[in-house]
Amino acid sequence: MQKLADIKQNFPEWYLNVIEASELAENSPTPGCIVIRPYGYAIWENIQKVLDKQIKETGTQNAYFPLLIPESFIKREAKHVEGFSPELAVVTYAGGKKLEEPLVVRPTSETMIYHMFSKWIKSWRDLPLKINQWANVMRWEMRTRPFLRTREFLWQEGHTAHDSLKEAEDFAIKMQQLYKKFLEEYMAIPTIDGEKSESERFAGADHTYTFEGMMQDGKALQMGTSHVLAQSFSKAFEIFYQDKDGNIKTPHCTSWGITTRTIGAMIMVHGDQNGLIIPPKIAPIAVVIIPIFKNDEDKIKVFGIAEKLYKSLKDKNISVELDENETKTPGAKFYHWEVRGVPLRIEIGPKDVEKNQVVIVNRVEQDRDKKKEFISFEAADFKIEEMLVKIHAQMLDRARTNMQSMHHEGNKLEEFGPKLEKENGFYQTGWCGKEECEAALKTYKATIRCLLKEKTQPNCFKCNDSSKTDIIVAKAY
Amino acid sequence: MQKLADIKQNFPEWYLNVIEASELAENSPTPGCIVIRPYGYAIWENIQKVLDKQIKETGTQNAYFPLLIPESFIKREAKHVEGFSPELAVVTYAGGKKLEEPLVVRPTSETMIYHMFSKWIKSWRDLPLKINQWANVMRWEMRTRPFLRTREFLWQEGHTAHDSLKEAEDFAIKMQQLYKKFLEEYMAIPTIDGEKSESERFAGADHTYTFEGMMQDGKALQMGTSHVLAQSFSKAFEIFYQDKDGNIKTPHCTSWGITTRTIGAMIMVHGDQNGLIIPPKIAPIAVVIIPIFKNDEDKIKVFGIAEKLYKSLKDKNISVELDENETKTPGAKFYHWEVRGVPLRIEIGPKDVEKNQVVIVNRVEQDRDKKKEFISFEAADFKIEEMLVKIHAQMLDRARTNMQSMHHEGNKLEEFGPKLEKENGFYQTGWCGKEECEAALKTYKATIRCLLKEKTQPNCFKCNDSSKTDIIVAKAY
Repeated sequence: MQKLADIKQNFPEWYLNVIEASELAENSPTPGCIVIRPYGYAIWENIQKVLDKQIKETGTQNAYFPLLIPESFIKREAKHVEGFSPELAVVTYAGGKKLEEPLVVRPTSETMIYHMFSKWIKSWRDLPLKINQWANVMRWEMRTRPFLRTREFLWQEGHTAHDSLKEAEDFAIKMQQLYKKFLEEYMAIPTIDGEKSESERFAGADHTYTFEGMMQDGKALQMGTSHVLAQSFSKAFEIFYQDKDGNIKTPHCTSWGITTRTIGAMIMVHGDQNGLIIPPKIAPIAVVIIPIFKNDEDKIKVFGIAEKLYKSLKDKNISVELDENETKTPGAKFYHWEVRGVPLRIEIGPKDVEKNQVVIVNRVEQDRDKKKEFISFEAADFKIEEMLVKIHAQMLDRARTNMQSMHHEGNKLEEFGPKLEKENGFYQTGWCGKEECEAALKTYKATIRCLLKEKTQPNCFKCNDSSKTDIIVAKAY
Repeated sequence: MQKLADIKQNFPEWYLNVIEASELAENSPTPGCIVIRPYGYAIWENIQKVLDKQIKETGTQNAYFPLLIPESFIKREAKHVEGFSPELAVVTYAGGKKLEEPLVVRPTSETMIYHMFSKWIKSWRDLPLKINQWANVMRWEMRTRPFLRTREFLWQEGHTAHDSLKEAEDFAIKMQQLYKKFLEEYMAIPTIDGEKSESERFAGADHTYTFEGMMQDGKALQMGTSHVLAQSFSKAFEIFYQDKDGNIKTPHCTSWGITTRTIGAMIMVHGDQNGLIIPPKIAPIAVVIIPIFKNDEDKIKVFGIAEKLYKSLKDKNISVELDENETKTPGAKFYHWEVRGVPLRIEIGPKDVEKNQVVIVNRVEQDRDKKKEFISFEAADFKIEEMLVKIHAQMLDRARTNMQSMHHEGNKLEEFGPKLEKENGFYQTGWCGKEECEAALKTYKATIRCLLKEKTQPNCFKCNDSSKTDIIVAKAY
């Protein structure tokens, strides 16, 4: 058994250790790209299942667009090419020949999708058009870290076209809120939502809405984004339609996405010194049953109860595993499932059978006295269902408490800057909106994570001009 | 409304017309690559949903491997590189720099996956290892055709490692049979299953098992394949494990896949002069309800019934659409859903409401008298469910009849060769097993589609030596 690095002393190393020990993912021979192993991929499948349903409920349809995009397409939107050029992977040879025009591996699909939109949108009747794609994308990052930043990653990218700017803005915010709610309700991850400053915006967007999570080390992680592209791409790709009055118009667009990075967030928000803790609703295995016995007589008794419970949990659609492995000790099994973050463990031994009870062990509870409970076998399936709901709430609560404990009020940069260098966290302060003030944060390796709607600080953290809105300043992954 | 080319006179043109008119897919600006539009992608999602469940039931787990593979990896298995080299798309630049080692866009993932297997397989306890990946792959084909042969396509690729050759062979055949059954039970497509000749085998396989469908024009389409790779890749990628007795061994592997090509097969097996016909079990819309009315009074009556039926079909988990569009005539709606292949149409007019009935129209029935039925509203949801089962059976039956009607006995090539030139179909004959005899088929643009298990012909179609087994000869897509 591999020992994990100390989560408090060496969080980055702990993160890599956990991924390895829980078999979520592994480095691949392709530089900067990972293999997502079955246990990690099952989490992604669970995320996809829920999100796909929610995205479809907004009237969005799935489709699939080419992986390779002609280089000239990327160049059609000026800010877009500027933003993405340094990160492109380019196919120059194919079928044994040099290509006349190089093809880039999509870093995102705005250019391809809005080109297709220009063929599909002719009349106001074709609007709004809402398309989503689940796909792999490629950005040639220099420093990579599993799930958080890899050259290839998996995501969904939604793209919509609307009749008015207002409608596009409303839809971009709707998707931001959908994601935020999904993260809370399914992944037990609280976020702060707001808008990105101009320098942090998506290349080609008018507004970028974000929702930032806080990791246990106090650093921020951008969990996903939703952009108001307005007419940047629709003009560059010549999308025209006739409105109800016969006028020729250009639609207003949005795009929004969430990636396999959410798995990285899950690790860093919930994990502990013993390994992963996976929120029950997206856990590949929410409940594991460990039969404990020393002889064949006990084995028969214990398995009788264990199999009955397994079946009744299955019938309730709970993802349950009965660990029948006979080459491992119960202790080794505890470790195995603990590092893999299974939220609820059930132990059944001969004494439990006699007492008509089972033992349930809550993975997230840090208080030893509260961790274990004995419950009667009759009430077990009902009680387990209840416990899974409780564990989710507990995880969200723990994450919220952590986030609040590292949420600081900042006033002037000269005060909170030096503090921020030593102590990670969210620093809420005021900002005048000028880029030169924003740039001063670089000294402390921090950035504006988002602009909030509220305004509690009268002045800018840097220049002392009147503040437009509060902002969150933090170091980020 | 676009008129479709004559299905009998110009099948290839009809095929392209149907794809366009039904909005399944569209050519993209990336040469040889298509955009799969929402209606086409919804079919693929339905195929995935069923197959993914069936694949998991074999004990196979999903994972995700990198899109880009170091060029040196492709070269490690001699036959593999020979087979795939001419078709590779290669990334030579990334992040603004020339790469030290070019990366190929995966044409298939044997090389990457068996490399990872070499890390994961150490002991007989790690076997069998069964991994599947849903992914995009790229093969730089010269002549492309939507769904049938595109440079990028979507598929699943399964890869397994076993302790013995026998176990690997059994598993490869199990997957071939799983696919064959899936095609019949969900897509109403009958196939002939057998083994590929050496020249048609997958590059690096010992055996390739296939299942060949017959299109309405009598040409064959390989619907998918399942390979016994044996030790070719496991040796090239140095996979070693310790067996129960402590001996160091190399496992035997299989790989198997099915692609978006199945959608092309569905079009060509089932479509008719009016457009697509989609098998009910994978149809994005299995039932469409068309309300017919001329005034508001009728509208209220008709919608009352239509909405009630819509709800009761939804409750039965039937994918149903109520066409509420008021800018289209009923006739235009009939055309719209007919070309899109919705298997069952329900018409409800004011007279039907009075008679407490609805009209159901069977898309696949070619006999005008049998096409329409009046059913009482009370029995409608039950009857509709029954009709969808019947339609599936009818489609499979129709496809089987077509396949049988073009299944010819061949004896000597000089007899059936000239016939085959004029008349497509499956020609069953005998073969000695020699490649030079196989090569003689090129004159007639035909190939051996598969070797059958049965032997009805005593001699080879070409050299007259004793036949080893019957084969199917045909022209193919």
